[in-house]
Amino acid sequence: MPGIGPRTAQRLALHLLRQPEEQIRSFADALLAARTEVGHCQTCHHLSAEPTCEICRNPERANGQICVVADSRDLLALERTREFSGHYHVLGGLISPMDGIGPDLLQISSLVKRVAANNTEEVILALTPSVEGDTTSLYVARLLKPFTRVSRIAYGLPVGSELEYADDVTLSRALEGRRSME
Amino acid sequence: MPGIGPRTAQRLALHLLRQPEEQIRSFADALLAARTEVGHCQTCHHLSAEPTCEICRNPERANGQICVVADSRDLLALERTREFSGHYHVLGGLISPMDGIGPDLLQISSLVKRVAANNTEEVILALTPSVEGDTTSLYVARLLKPFTRVSRIAYGLPVGSELEYADDVTLSRALEGRRSME
Repeated sequence: MPGIGPRTAQRLALHLLRQPEEQIRSFADALLAARTEVGHCQTCHHLSAEPTCEICRNPERANGQICVVADSRDLLALERTREFSGHYHVLGGLISPMDGIGPDLLQISSLVKRVAANNTEEVILALTPSVEGDTTSLYVARLLKPFTRVSRIAYGLPVGSELEYADDVTLSRALEGRRSME
Repeated sequence: MPGIGPRTAQRLALHLLRQPEEQIRSFADALLAARTEVGHCQTCHHLSAEPTCEICRNPERANGQICVVADSRDLLALERTREFSGHYHVLGGLISPMDGIGPDLLQISSLVKRVAANNTEEVILALTPSVEGDTTSLYVARLLKPFTRVSRIAYGLPVGSELEYADDVTLSRALEGRRSME
């Protein structure tokens, strides 16, 4: 399992062996239930125990905005900020020819169908600032442009950082992405 | 001296004592020369041995843009990116009422005079994303707006970072500062 080396694994195993059998049984049941019951939302492909996830079911979140993320972890990070109140779309990864991941393996065509069928005012691409993220952003933006306004989150200096210690690429992006002060 | 603790200080002192006297004499002279000869550029207040610094003297850099930074270290960081080919203005710090640093202690009025007197097309504020940086940006932008276009560098996700690990404030800024994809 990720982040668990041989020593931690041994400590966890010995701890489990010391617990009452009843507790281990309910733990095993919970694991199995999680695996069998949690699937993906039919609309946005976020993790969900129901066919449609809580966010997609919430009528207050239908504000015409769809935020596109690579996976459910990114969605949860954005939810923590409480800054975004629209819907999401989880691609399930990023386009990466080196790893054999083409657009067909991602939830891109379902996104285009969704945007074309609904009254989507804006699609916000929230993908990581990397070669794969940029490639995916450009690809998705080109497909969506006939149907809606497309924007992407800002790349630049993180809050609390020092200009002096920023890497050159980030600094270049921050200069290039400068905004007019209203 | 910053970054030098008692142990390093002792190691450096003992090393110096082992060098030939002539070498120490020229080292001492160089230190004194640096201290007496390096002053500030009259125009942009960057460190300079001449009354006007190399960047201000370079006619090819007169492109109508002035990039405003807090101090010379930030200017050097931006120079390393080779992304900016205009002039600079070094404020000498940021407005910080908590530390008793008001606008009068910084090179703000000289910036306004410089912008008003020259044909400045754009002023780019490259200050750190912090309370002091934001305060200074807003203050300077208000003063400059009658004379020129004012922009600030982008705040958001640094290049190569993961959305999942970004702090909430940076993520909020990245969402808020999203850009339309052309």
